[in-house]
Amino acid sequence: MVHIIEVDDPADPRVDDFRDLNSSDRRPDLPEGRGLVIAEGILVVQRLLASRFPLRALLGTERRMETLTEDLASVDAPFYLLSEQVMHDVVGFHLNRGVLASADRAPATDLGAVLQGARTVAVLEGVNDPENLGSMFRNAAGLGVDGVLFGSRCADPLYRRAVRVSMGHVLRVPFADVPNWPRGLDVLRTAGFQTIALTPEPGAVTLASAMTGEKVALLVGAEGPGLTEHAMRACDVRARIPMAPGTDSLNVSTAAAMAFYERVR
Amino acid sequence: MVHIIEVDDPADPRVDDFRDLNSSDRRPDLPEGRGLVIAEGILVVQRLLASRFPLRALLGTERRMETLTEDLASVDAPFYLLSEQVMHDVVGFHLNRGVLASADRAPATDLGAVLQGARTVAVLEGVNDPENLGSMFRNAAGLGVDGVLFGSRCADPLYRRAVRVSMGHVLRVPFADVPNWPRGLDVLRTAGFQTIALTPEPGAVTLASAMTGEKVALLVGAEGPGLTEHAMRACDVRARIPMAPGTDSLNVSTAAAMAFYERVR
Repeated sequence: MVHIIEVDDPADPRVDDFRDLNSSDRRPDLPEGRGLVIAEGILVVQRLLASRFPLRALLGTERRMETLTEDLASVDAPFYLLSEQVMHDVVGFHLNRGVLASADRAPATDLGAVLQGARTVAVLEGVNDPENLGSMFRNAAGLGVDGVLFGSRCADPLYRRAVRVSMGHVLRVPFADVPNWPRGLDVLRTAGFQTIALTPEPGAVTLASAMTGEKVALLVGAEGPGLTEHAMRACDVRARIPMAPGTDSLNVSTAAAMAFYERVR
Repeated sequence: MVHIIEVDDPADPRVDDFRDLNSSDRRPDLPEGRGLVIAEGILVVQRLLASRFPLRALLGTERRMETLTEDLASVDAPFYLLSEQVMHDVVGFHLNRGVLASADRAPATDLGAVLQGARTVAVLEGVNDPENLGSMFRNAAGLGVDGVLFGSRCADPLYRRAVRVSMGHVLRVPFADVPNWPRGLDVLRTAGFQTIALTPEPGAVTLASAMTGEKVALLVGAEGPGLTEHAMRACDVRARIPMAPGTDSLNVSTAAAMAFYERVR
């Protein structure tokens, strides 16, 4: 059972997990960053409760607590109950989702464990925008991608904004780092994955004809610069989405979604 | 030739088009809304200059003006040249894109003119979020969609945020209203378009098998509620994107992008 604790004083140190969220949600290696995992809103809080991340506490208004009654039955953690005004003063801004949960980071998943049984994985290089990263996870979950792998220079998937934009799917879709980038892609090849580099290069084959493997790893680079030449050289094939002339490349998470869709259509 | 006019005083009435952008960019029917078309940043300004929208003025820093030298050669309008600080004071916030252009709204395009020669059109109902609408246009342009049609309750495509998120493609991709919604869809059927309703309903056929027409109209509803039953009944076929169980529907512009992609793959 959850322990309900009413909080009237915004300065109460028991709610420190949720204080000044705009700075404290940063990674532990950044100034003031504590690196907690913060879930916002009913749906994402439910996904945090069902995840591998060790719950620390919940905080919210009475109305949101009632909506969560069933989910909270098996939870062993404090629920800090407060008014909208006190919540505003703790968090540092108005949060109309009305409920938050905090969790500790879980140990990183091992690359081998993510690949085990996987048919489709996304591999990201330089995707350093937390919102793009979050929507990448949302699309990956929706289109049946089994895991997300990080090459180099990606945003923190557990940063609050990424958690929110992903609709909590960063808490469900397994992810891991690929060490020794990009040579570490050999691990995927050894595991039987066809490695496909997404690129806007007109000389590349189309996505539909490139994707021949039983198991597929889709490599996606940052919006704008795209994948590095090093990463592309380490792949089996370069594939492009057929684009209209005179337009820009698609948003990176949209481009990746096309590739995920190609796997399930 | 552009007429360069240096502005030192943020209160100068000649730069009123760009004043307090966060409120003045609203539609003419909203409080303080003037309904001007505002382009932000080099790329979007270039697209405005090349569009059917009648240019009123430009405003920006010296550095941005220099970048635009070639584009401005054939422009007959004032360029208000100012410092970053004066620009901040006029616009009401810091705008690191450094250049803006204003234009008048052009007369609405006729539905028949949009359909003329088109192979693929998107038809939107209830897409009332300007950012979703903007990214819909960006995806439509990138994936060769010939026009965007509005059923009911959609956001204003010429609102500043939609223009920006679309990367200026709302200024290039033709759009029109479908009058008498949803019965007005008959006009598309008469013009030879297969009308396909996108839905998450598990009973619907997959997008890949539904899309059989030579000419196709793709109907997309708001994220969450989706298309109204009325609109779906007015369509030839209901189609779904194959989704992983236990996930939410995709973002509306991403879902539409899958359908656009299906046409070009």
